[in-house]
Amino acid sequence: MIKQRKYFIVFTVILFVALTGCSTVTKKIDPLPSWNEGAAKTNIIKFVQTVADKSSPDYVPPAERIATFDNDGTLWTEKPVYFQLLFAIDRAKQLAAQHPEWEIAQPLKAVLENGLQALPALDEKSLIQLLMATHADTTTEEFSQIVKDWLATAKHPKFNRPYTELVFQPMLELLAYLRANEFKTFIVSGGGIEFMRPWVEEVYGIPPEQVIGSSIKTKLEVRDGKPVLLRLPEINFIDDKAGKPVGINQHIGRRPIAAFGNSDGDLQMLQWTAAGENKRFMLLVHHTDGLREYAYDKESHVGKLDKALDEALIKDWTVVDMKKDWKVIYPKD
Amino acid sequence: MIKQRKYFIVFTVILFVALTGCSTVTKKIDPLPSWNEGAAKTNIIKFVQTVADKSSPDYVPPAERIATFDNDGTLWTEKPVYFQLLFAIDRAKQLAAQHPEWEIAQPLKAVLENGLQALPALDEKSLIQLLMATHADTTTEEFSQIVKDWLATAKHPKFNRPYTELVFQPMLELLAYLRANEFKTFIVSGGGIEFMRPWVEEVYGIPPEQVIGSSIKTKLEVRDGKPVLLRLPEINFIDDKAGKPVGINQHIGRRPIAAFGNSDGDLQMLQWTAAGENKRFMLLVHHTDGLREYAYDKESHVGKLDKALDEALIKDWTVVDMKKDWKVIYPKD
Repeated sequence: MIKQRKYFIVFTVILFVALTGCSTVTKKIDPLPSWNEGAAKTNIIKFVQTVADKSSPDYVPPAERIATFDNDGTLWTEKPVYFQLLFAIDRAKQLAAQHPEWEIAQPLKAVLENGLQALPALDEKSLIQLLMATHADTTTEEFSQIVKDWLATAKHPKFNRPYTELVFQPMLELLAYLRANEFKTFIVSGGGIEFMRPWVEEVYGIPPEQVIGSSIKTKLEVRDGKPVLLRLPEINFIDDKAGKPVGINQHIGRRPIAAFGNSDGDLQMLQWTAAGENKRFMLLVHHTDGLREYAYDKESHVGKLDKALDEALIKDWTVVDMKKDWKVIYPKD
Repeated sequence: MIKQRKYFIVFTVILFVALTGCSTVTKKIDPLPSWNEGAAKTNIIKFVQTVADKSSPDYVPPAERIATFDNDGTLWTEKPVYFQLLFAIDRAKQLAAQHPEWEIAQPLKAVLENGLQALPALDEKSLIQLLMATHADTTTEEFSQIVKDWLATAKHPKFNRPYTELVFQPMLELLAYLRANEFKTFIVSGGGIEFMRPWVEEVYGIPPEQVIGSSIKTKLEVRDGKPVLLRLPEINFIDDKAGKPVGINQHIGRRPIAAFGNSDGDLQMLQWTAAGENKRFMLLVHHTDGLREYAYDKESHVGKLDKALDEALIKDWTVVDMKKDWKVIYPKD
């Protein structure tokens, strides 16, 4: 009997080890630790759990779990102006020696003389001139390196930190949480597609093929026997406002089931997402934290949030109150 | 002793079940069963094994394993003409009653009267007119349904089968083999992006966000309070020849490490792929099987393979001899 008992114990232990070794130990971990408890966090988790639940009538197969994120003001800070404009100013200064004509011709003259202070006075045409002068006439590979070099040294005027440290920790957690639930996360930004791709994979975990943005035209050329793509000073696509659904359709070809923005520039993307059938999730980040980041909405020149906020309230979209909902703003806080 | 022995056997059986239950049973299965043994098959397998081998100096991380495939003539048949043109003819007939002006104006008059026979005489401008007349003025969702409806009933004039059955079985296996080795497979076709997306996920396992093609412009409009994208009769992008690297950069933002084509329209895509650093793989499908499919190359009007074939021979790219290398052509053969 003793021997039988001994073998029974060995048998039981082996079976236990075998079974637990095969199964996954599931622990309850907060997927959004930088989010305070509240409606925003609850809504996000409830939506993700619902669409990922095979027994739910609102279940969505993984291939259709497309989530689109605006970048400026949604994933990273956008004040005092879009960081890409600060890049343009620095690049104008860098290139000035090769362009003596900029010393006498606007808008480059004003930008070289007054930097950031020159921007508010520039109209759309002048802004485009600034962007073409500083973003074209390189190959795509050269431009990627120029962006990386700038990000490695440039610092934000208020926070005195590299721009890539001014990404929102709660949104990084949200991106990771969605991907852990088999969502494909895309950026859909008014910013330049080639200005984002060199760094968003490392910083957000979003590969270049999941980045949609504004672009200039490129042209295939052969240099020293090798094909290169030359960046031309000509607009190809503006991925903003009514352009966002167009860009989403062009690149993804499938309607998102979740969309995240922070300004009126994102309104059409959220409307486009909301107009799909079945369960949808729309969220706006409301910048309410003048101390830790910036506070702005209806009156702001950059990242104006007016009509989209009204529509969010009427349609019961989720609005993040940055000050109240986020425990920390940046990863290194 | 007998009891001990009995328990020992039970113990051993349980341990065996437990261990084999946890591990994956690996069996040597031919990943490309429809490919005859030969240089093409050997080259493909050697390349995939090399870039997926962490101990190899030519190892490529999964995120960078981008493979691009032309569609017409590479993944499915393209004769007697690109199937999208056969769709355009059928659609013209369908729409004719609403367009009495087509009865007197070229090129629609000729297309309505002579169908396929009218095509060789059409110049580029006329072909574009035919495409605009038959591909625009619907919403994107309507157009997707129109394509699906056509594919559900239309049949190939020679093979009398639905077009989606005229995909190449060996290429389906190649797509699956690459994905099993963590490649992302993309279509990069001169054909219409919205003509492909409605069916390529089901047929090739390629999701809409991994389809690149030619396109017309779209415009956001509100209809009955809902946003729709209206297809405009205006070319947005031609994804052919020098346009292919441009399209790849625009959509993927990363250089492929493998590219598959069948005509001179794919030459720049293969050159662009080949010009990257480290290990690359370039392949051309040479249509040599007049009995089971079609035989054509340098003199062909559709899918002309001339310069690309010369370059493949000089640069030692892999050339598939359809007749010799493929055991079967279509899945239902």
